[in-house]
Amino acid sequence: MSKFWSELTASLTPYVPGEQPKDQKYIKLNTNENPYPPSPSVVEALKGVSHADLRLYPDPTCESLIHAIADRYDLQADQIFVGNGSDEILAFAFAAFFSPNRAIRFADITYSFYQVYAQLYQVPVERVPLDEAFNTPLERFYYSEGGVVIANPNAPTSKYIPVDELRAVLEHNPDQVVIIDEAYIDFGGESAVKLISSYPNLLVVQTMSKSRSLAGLRIGYAMGNQELIEGLNRIKNSFNSYTLDRLALAGGVASLQDEAYFETTNARVIQTREWTTAQLRTLGFDVMDSKANFVFITHPNQDASQLFQALRHRGVLVRFFNQPRIDQFLRVSIGTDEEMQAFIQALKEIVG
Amino acid sequence: MSKFWSELTASLTPYVPGEQPKDQKYIKLNTNENPYPPSPSVVEALKGVSHADLRLYPDPTCESLIHAIADRYDLQADQIFVGNGSDEILAFAFAAFFSPNRAIRFADITYSFYQVYAQLYQVPVERVPLDEAFNTPLERFYYSEGGVVIANPNAPTSKYIPVDELRAVLEHNPDQVVIIDEAYIDFGGESAVKLISSYPNLLVVQTMSKSRSLAGLRIGYAMGNQELIEGLNRIKNSFNSYTLDRLALAGGVASLQDEAYFETTNARVIQTREWTTAQLRTLGFDVMDSKANFVFITHPNQDASQLFQALRHRGVLVRFFNQPRIDQFLRVSIGTDEEMQAFIQALKEIVG
Repeated sequence: MSKFWSELTASLTPYVPGEQPKDQKYIKLNTNENPYPPSPSVVEALKGVSHADLRLYPDPTCESLIHAIADRYDLQADQIFVGNGSDEILAFAFAAFFSPNRAIRFADITYSFYQVYAQLYQVPVERVPLDEAFNTPLERFYYSEGGVVIANPNAPTSKYIPVDELRAVLEHNPDQVVIIDEAYIDFGGESAVKLISSYPNLLVVQTMSKSRSLAGLRIGYAMGNQELIEGLNRIKNSFNSYTLDRLALAGGVASLQDEAYFETTNARVIQTREWTTAQLRTLGFDVMDSKANFVFITHPNQDASQLFQALRHRGVLVRFFNQPRIDQFLRVSIGTDEEMQAFIQALKEIVG
Repeated sequence: MSKFWSELTASLTPYVPGEQPKDQKYIKLNTNENPYPPSPSVVEALKGVSHADLRLYPDPTCESLIHAIADRYDLQADQIFVGNGSDEILAFAFAAFFSPNRAIRFADITYSFYQVYAQLYQVPVERVPLDEAFNTPLERFYYSEGGVVIANPNAPTSKYIPVDELRAVLEHNPDQVVIIDEAYIDFGGESAVKLISSYPNLLVVQTMSKSRSLAGLRIGYAMGNQELIEGLNRIKNSFNSYTLDRLALAGGVASLQDEAYFETTNARVIQTREWTTAQLRTLGFDVMDSKANFVFITHPNQDASQLFQALRHRGVLVRFFNQPRIDQFLRVSIGTDEEMQAFIQALKEIVG
C-alpha cells in the first residue's frame, strides 16, 4: 500500500502471466505459445519495413491491417478493431460495454484475466459454475444484466462449444454485449464470426499470438457490428492513439497473406495434440477433448502440484493453477513432436 | 450513441492525433516527429532479433529495457516503468494515482490528452490558466486536492520551466502525485529526474518518440520512487501483461546505448530550431522561446487558420488548434534544414 495510490489501485489483484524463466533452458509448455516460427512472409515483411521511417508515428487507424483482416473474414473495415494483443482489446471491451451497476457473467473456470478486468473497471460479476465435466451450462448465461464473456474454446479446460449453440445466448441477451473470446479457435473450432451479421450484440475477439505464432509481436483483433467497433475506438482513442507499432502492423498483414502456412502449422499442432492425448490416456491420465493448442489433464493417483514440480525438475514447464476445482489439473501447451515426446518420456519416469 | 455502450463510453470525447495524410507527400511538420532516423545501433538490434522467437511472448517484466534506462539515468530498476508510448503510461498514471473524488490540476493550455484521460478515469479537473505570455503560475498548483500534471516543456507552447522552480510544486503537494511530462525535455531542458531522490511524489514521464526518433516503435518510460512504479505495475498488470513487443524492447535498449548519436541529432534539431526562430521573427512572427522540437508562432496580421490552409496548399503540414486562446497560433515541428528552408520559403510567399 502507498498513500499515493488511488483506491482502485489498492483494490486490484493483478493478473500473473505464466512464468518466462531466465534461469535455464526449459521445454516450455506453460504459456500456449506456438512451437513453430511465424510465416516466412512475416519475416520478409519485417525486413521490408523502413528503419528510417521508425521516426514517424504508425498509422493510428491501422488501415492496412484492418483491411487485411476484413478481407480474411469477409467483413467490412468498420467491423474490425485491432489492438496490442487480445488482452488489451478485452480490457477496452470491458470499459466500452460493461458498467459498474450491471453484473456481467462468465464461467467460474475460465481465463482468469476476466476477473481482473472486472476489478479494473469495477464491473460486478456473476460467475456461472461449469458442470462436473467442465461443460458450460449455456442457459445460465440467458438474461444477463450487463453482458456475457465466454472463451471458446475455454481456457484452461480446452473445451469447445459448437458455435451454433451460442446463438441462444446471443438471442437471450439482445441488449447486452456478448464477447466470445476465440484466442484458441483456429485449432479445430469454428469461429462465431459467421454470426456477426445476425447478432449486433456479438463481439468476437481473436489473437495472432497462438495460431499465427506472433505472441512476441502483440497483435489482437475484434470483429463485430459497427457500433461495437466504434465503442472500442472511443475507449482506445481516449487511452493511446497508437497501440500498434510499425513492425507489428507490417507483420500482421503479412501473416494474413500466407494462409497455406497458417493451415499447415495448425494442422501439425492438432496432429501432435491428438498423439499427445492418446499417449497421456495410455499413462492413465484423464484428458479433456481439446480444440485448443493445449490439453488439460489430471491423473487419478498423482497430485498435480507434485507432477508440476517433478516435470519442472526434469526441465519441462507446464501450467499449474492453484485454484478451487482445478488444483488437480495441469495445462500443457502443445509443442513440437520432439518436445511432446520428451514430455511423455518425463511423465513415464514420474508416474511409471 | 449505441445502446451497447457503457455510460462512460458515451461520455467520452476522444483525443484526435495530428493527421497522418495518405493522399500526397507533405513536408510533415505537424506531429513533432524527429526528422532524423533512429540510431544505426537500433537498426542493427532490430536485425538481430530472432524472427523465430516472435512465436514467444516478450518478457512481461521488460527487464533488459528497464535496466538500460536505470543505467542511463542512474536510478534503480524498481524506479523505472516502461510502456507502449508515454501516452499509455500517462493513462495508467491517471488510473493509478488520481481519484474520482479529488480534483487534479493542469494548465488550461497544455497537452490535450490530459483532459481525455481525466474523462476516461472520471477524475475532476481544475484547469489553471497560463498567464498572457503563456507562462505557468506555479503557485496556482500548490495544495492541489488530487494531484498535478505539468508538461515541461509545455505543449503546444514550447515553454520550459527551469527544473528547480518545480521543487516548490512538489513541496506543496506532499501527499499528491505530481506528474512531470517530459516528452520534449531532451531538446534543451534539464530533466526533473534529479529530484526523484528528494520527492517521493514525483513521477517523471519520458518517451523515445521524439528525441530518439522512435515514434514508430512505441516506447515510453516513467521514473519515480518504488511505490509509484509499483502502482503503475498494478494497473498495467490488470490491463495487459505484455505491452511492449520483442522488437520494441530490443530497439529501445539499443537506442540508449548510442548516446553520441542521440546528442548529435538533438543538437542538430536545436540548431535548426534557432535558425527557424530567427527567420520567422524576420518575417514578423511572434515566436515563443522554445526548448522543444517545435515552435509555437503567431503573426500580428495573419489569421492562423488561413496560414495553416495556405501552407497545406503548398505541401507543408503544420498543426492548428481551433481552441480558445491559441486559435491564432500554429505549432510547427522542427524538420531538417531543407524542410525548414522550404517552410520559410512557403511563408515568404504567403505573408511576403
